[in-house]
This record gives sequence, structure tokens and C-alpha cells, in this order.
Amino acid sequence: MGFKSEEYALPAKTTQEELLSLVKTLNKKEDINGILVQLPLPKHLDDKAVIEAISPLKDVDAFHAVNVGKIMLGEYDFLPCTPAGVMEMLHYYDIDVSGKNCVVIGRSNIVGKPMAMLLLHENGTVTICHSKTKNLSQICARADILVAAVGKTKFITAEMVKDGAVVIDVGMDRDEYGKLCGDVDFENVKNKCSYITPVPGGVGPMTIATLMKNTLKAAKIQNNII
Amino acid sequence: MGFKSEEYALPAKTTQEELLSLVKTLNKKEDINGILVQLPLPKHLDDKAVIEAISPLKDVDAFHAVNVGKIMLGEYDFLPCTPAGVMEMLHYYDIDVSGKNCVVIGRSNIVGKPMAMLLLHENGTVTICHSKTKNLSQICARADILVAAVGKTKFITAEMVKDGAVVIDVGMDRDEYGKLCGDVDFENVKNKCSYITPVPGGVGPMTIATLMKNTLKAAKIQNNII
Repeated sequence: MGFKSEEYALPAKTTQEELLSLVKTLNKKEDINGILVQLPLPKHLDDKAVIEAISPLKDVDAFHAVNVGKIMLGEYDFLPCTPAGVMEMLHYYDIDVSGKNCVVIGRSNIVGKPMAMLLLHENGTVTICHSKTKNLSQICARADILVAAVGKTKFITAEMVKDGAVVIDVGMDRDEYGKLCGDVDFENVKNKCSYITPVPGGVGPMTIATLMKNTLKAAKIQNNII
Repeated sequence: MGFKSEEYALPAKTTQEELLSLVKTLNKKEDINGILVQLPLPKHLDDKAVIEAISPLKDVDAFHAVNVGKIMLGEYDFLPCTPAGVMEMLHYYDIDVSGKNCVVIGRSNIVGKPMAMLLLHENGTVTICHSKTKNLSQICARADILVAAVGKTKFITAEMVKDGAVVIDVGMDRDEYGKLCGDVDFENVKNKCSYITPVPGGVGPMTIATLMKNTLKAAKIQNNII
């Protein structure tokens, strides 16, 4: 895409001060428009403090509290990458979310919660499920749009999927042979649903595409083009 | 409670600049720890810009994007007043949210969305419903904890409530005689549920109490006591 990319592969023993100092430097660097800190960080480092140190204008992951707040308020500067990639697919295939029963399994800050907000803002009726949810199968079986972000291989079986449902698999797991796979039992679910995303090749590339979109927007904002 | 309160009742024709200038002055005033702008503002004023102008450290309503973000992330400086008041009642009556089906009707930035987040953070399975929701009665009838924030008198009827459910009425409506009432058909629902909040006298006072709690916390933060 013609984007310049700088990678800073720091040693595991990097201190909090060194990392914050690098973020600060990149915040000021005019030829850097987006900053992404690869998480999780080693345990001696404070993820949250590092994320809050990123300039909200360069926070293309939309992890900074002010950008998270804007996601909840529906006033996006930067879209949350994975959920926005999912919405882009729904739009592309003309899948109307309005009034649909949307079930999101997983409540992470990166996927579950912002996914719920994006579906809600398009008028979906949204249920957020997680490890403490009871009767998960029943809840899933009522979903018109089912988003799985669990992290467990073949967690979503055919019995949990309504006929004709749209199934979005955000999982990035490994099967018993070490092969990359998602949260959904693809082979058995695919014949029951109307749409399903494969893993790999489904949500993943859309996440990256949204990150690029956010970076372009960041460049425009920083250069007062929008 | 011994809190000092200053009221600035500005004329309806106040300009954006005048209002922003007042907010700026109050942001700097050391003996003011919390600022609350009574919404909605007259149409010629930009609510969002005014809210964003409030120092996040004095934003005791928790409406500023950075505080909204913290609500979604579960790292509250200030609790969203109405939802936090509801949680306080649930705690007081030892009503465990974990694993319960929680249905929130309404998706405002002030009540519905933060309410959903607070219930989710206490491990509730949360469904957010709104005007575009289909089969609302059925969804409500599955709720262990039902929160109504609709703004319509007697909107929640006994048929929509599960036996033994906990019913929280956030509505502040007027009945046909002009009397203050909530969203729930209290007389008919009260015998079916295990707990119900009256209107007036239920959620309302808890909202105010949370506002005071936030203001006390703001004073502590600003004076480096916490």
C-alpha cells in the first residue's frame, strides 16, 4: 500500500522508562502517523500506562481510553480494528444488522466489547456472553448473527447455530495437529448457516485492512486534511 | 453532606464561547472539584464540545470520552451515576449478577450502554434492547435482572416479567394524571417479581448519591489524597 513501516523489536528486559521514552519520541515524530504496541508486554511492564502514553491521534489500534470512549459514544476517530473488519464484511455482503439478534461470545476490550457496540450502533439487539454465561448453547441458537471470540478450537458446534445464521469466527486457535483454526467447527457448521468466515483468511485480513485505514485517517487528521 | 454547591443558571441565549469560557474558569478554580453541565443544552450549543471541555478530573458525571472509555475498560475513576446507583442497590440487597440473564432496555450513553458494561463486569450475561428490537416481550421474559430505561409509562407489563425477576425502573415519566411514574406497570408487576424499584424514590436518589460519591473522589484525586 505504500505505507512506510518502522519496527522496534525491543529486548524482553526493556524497562518501562525506555519503552515510554520510545513512545514519546514516536509521538513527536512527524513522519510517523500511527503507533501500535504489540501486546501482551512482558510482565514487568505496565500495558495500560504504555497505551495511555500513545498520542490518541496516533493510536490506530483505538486502545487509548479516549478512543475507547468514542467507540462507546459512537463518535469514532479510529475504528476498533477487528470489530470494524467484521462490520465491513457484513456491509459488503449486504447483511442488515438492524433488529437482528446478535450474540457476541467473548468480552475482551479488543474484540467483544467494541464488537457489541458496533452491532448496537447499527441497531442490532446485542447479547454479550462469556465464561460465566449459563445456557450458552440456547443463547447462541437464537442468534441471527453469531460472533465467536473465545479462543477455543471447535467451541461452536452445529447444535449451537440457528439455521441460516451468519457466523463470524474471530478465533485464532490451533487444532490437534497444530494447524491454525478458529472457534467454530467449520465443517459441521458451514452447511447450517447462511454465511461463515473461515480461519485463516476471514476476519484476520480484515483486521489488518482496518489498521491501514485507521493509519491513513491518522495521517489525514495530523495533516489537517480532514 | 456539607458540600458547597455553586449554580450558574445561564440565559438560554448564552453563546458557545461564553459557556466554554465558564467551564474553563471552573476547571481552573481550586475550590471547585466537580462540574456538571445540565443537559440537554439549547439547540444552538454543542453539547459534545462543552462536555469535552470539562477537565476529565472534574467530570463527575463521567460523560467525557476518556471517562466513558474507562467505563468500557472497567477502570473507573468516576462511576456513571445512574448505572452505579443501580449496582449499589443490587449489592445492598445481595443480588448476585454473575451468570444471570440481564436485559437492559435502552441504549443511551448515560444509562443503557454504561449499565450494560457494569453488569457485564460483574459477570452478567447482558442483552441490550432498544426501539429496533424484535420480540422484546420474549427477551424481557427471560431476564433474571431487567433494567428499563425507556421513557414510556407502563411500558413493562406483567407479561414481560419472569416470575421472581429483579426489576429496576430507571424511567422518569408522567402518567395520564401528570403524576411522576416509571417505565414499569408497578401495580401489576410488583407481585410477580422478587424485587422492584419504585418511581419516585428508587433509582433517582441513588443517582444523586453516586454523583456526590464521585465529587468526593474528585476532591481526593485533585488533592492527591488517593
